[in-house]
Amino acid sequence: MKLASLKQGRDGRLVVVSDDLAWYADAAAVAPTMQAALDNWADAAPRLAALAEDLNHDAIPKERFHERDAASPLPRAYQWADGSAYVNHVALVRQARGAEMPDSFWHDPLMYQGGSDAFLGPRDPIPLGDPAWGCDMEAEVVVVTDDVPAGIDAVAARSKILLVGLTNDVSLRGLIPGELAKGFGFFQSKPSSAMSPVFVTPDALGERWRDGKLHGTLCVDLNGQPLGRADAGVDMTFDFGQLIAHAAKTRNLGAGTIIGSGTVSNRDSDGGPGRPVDDGGVGYSCLAEVRTVETIRHGKPSTPFMKRGDTVCIWMDDERHHSIFGAIEQSVA
Amino acid sequence: MKLASLKQGRDGRLVVVSDDLAWYADAAAVAPTMQAALDNWADAAPRLAALAEDLNHDAIPKERFHERDAASPLPRAYQWADGSAYVNHVALVRQARGAEMPDSFWHDPLMYQGGSDAFLGPRDPIPLGDPAWGCDMEAEVVVVTDDVPAGIDAVAARSKILLVGLTNDVSLRGLIPGELAKGFGFFQSKPSSAMSPVFVTPDALGERWRDGKLHGTLCVDLNGQPLGRADAGVDMTFDFGQLIAHAAKTRNLGAGTIIGSGTVSNRDSDGGPGRPVDDGGVGYSCLAEVRTVETIRHGKPSTPFMKRGDTVCIWMDDERHHSIFGAIEQSVA
Repeated sequence: MKLASLKQGRDGRLVVVSDDLAWYADAAAVAPTMQAALDNWADAAPRLAALAEDLNHDAIPKERFHERDAASPLPRAYQWADGSAYVNHVALVRQARGAEMPDSFWHDPLMYQGGSDAFLGPRDPIPLGDPAWGCDMEAEVVVVTDDVPAGIDAVAARSKILLVGLTNDVSLRGLIPGELAKGFGFFQSKPSSAMSPVFVTPDALGERWRDGKLHGTLCVDLNGQPLGRADAGVDMTFDFGQLIAHAAKTRNLGAGTIIGSGTVSNRDSDGGPGRPVDDGGVGYSCLAEVRTVETIRHGKPSTPFMKRGDTVCIWMDDERHHSIFGAIEQSVA
Repeated sequence: MKLASLKQGRDGRLVVVSDDLAWYADAAAVAPTMQAALDNWADAAPRLAALAEDLNHDAIPKERFHERDAASPLPRAYQWADGSAYVNHVALVRQARGAEMPDSFWHDPLMYQGGSDAFLGPRDPIPLGDPAWGCDMEAEVVVVTDDVPAGIDAVAARSKILLVGLTNDVSLRGLIPGELAKGFGFFQSKPSSAMSPVFVTPDALGERWRDGKLHGTLCVDLNGQPLGRADAGVDMTFDFGQLIAHAAKTRNLGAGTIIGSGTVSNRDSDGGPGRPVDDGGVGYSCLAEVRTVETIRHGKPSTPFMKRGDTVCIWMDDERHHSIFGAIEQSVA
């Protein structure tokens, strides 16, 4: 099934969305908000699934679903923990600045604790206080978990994945070096992220959901031009079970925890650092990687970060070219 | 006024607590949970204050308040951002390991994004999967904010402070070096923290709350022996207004954001690295600082981290030796 939160109050209003994203049905009788459903998933999920089936069979009252009316499915969450599972991306960034990548990065996931108190809606503008902050998108896959006990193993952790979606993990590249040099990780350099209009249960993704990964082309357009067409199921060094197990090593995770994959990134077919989409490659899911590849190839980056008025669009289509999660479409304000 | 959340469900049950912590009155008529009150503070605060006044004047039904029945006031929160405002503490830790401290640390706060999805209750045991993780307490002051707009200045930010409390920011010292070396900050090394049973409005703190700081002796006992008696208002390089402004530089903060001071630490009166309480000093608010001072004085640390069965107690008394926030009392499980 597919779920969304229509904009209303701080936590939105939970609705069930038809598989083709054309219609929605009110889900207030089950739970007023997505967090409320997640807090009581064992009870809520079958009732929401019944609603979804009725909606898809036109058996209950329905309204037109407009992605622009959707908030992020969890407009605020109790936890947002973002991994960096496409180690290819990390290796490229390190190569560009001439830094060795520790071998441990291939078997011990990178993960940071992100801010989760105020996600942007999927069509909300990206606030940018200063263009020098170096505004970048990061197109990623996310999952939402049930309650997860501390110490869970990576295989069992897969069974805790309740929902799957996409995110634009907005990054302020100009603030990252100074912040990481201080040693406490990201804070100001990671402002509010935006999530896809719709989150989907793993079972509804069919063959696209396997091995704890989402498979399929993650599309990223910048100002209407193709920027990224990488496959989210390829070159993902750590599956979501491993990422959840990493997050839960020393503590329980509360229901509604959002775990991110990190920027999706595929190796180039020739083993090189990746080519743009119009050069026959799969492109890039963030501008930092574009600039990294430019640096490796030409000695310095030429693509600027996002400026006021620039737009980014992030989505994934199914085999019939229908959007699975709806689109994140944001402009820099 | 003083507020607490009795253990109930995921978010507790909001109650108003008498100034002497002896009684409580139900606050469900105003808001079922503390987060609900914070979401609508302008409306809720005067009604809660009226309840508190009635309770203190014995004008409404009341029940005995037992700290052991309290959850952390926000059993889960949408944001926990912990500063490191007692730069003396940072300087000592760096001195012990022979690392220069950048001068910028005196004017640019350190802050990390912490996990906020599952705080421990003030009397809950501290789960510890492996003694080698090096379990430590960090006694700190916290504030809870209203909605804060991005870009707020440090003086205006003080007016966004709605509640004040204490925390034990549990740290796993054995996991910190490896995690910080990866560059993404703390994650596994910062398991769930615990908060004081009661949070207090700044106005109810009188002279103890001034200049955006809490003044008074923060008491820390380890296994019933005095470990720390530092003054939270002394040597705090950044006040809470500055910490909030730092957190809000690039994004809004949602109502109910918890901002921490970092480990409270006072310079020794002789300018040296600090003496134990039974040696006439104000002691230490975490074991890492004890070990740091031992390293500076004797070349290596001799005090071990916490092991199973060890207990830590954190509280602050008023001038009549009454507990202001109640006590955090935890044993390692």
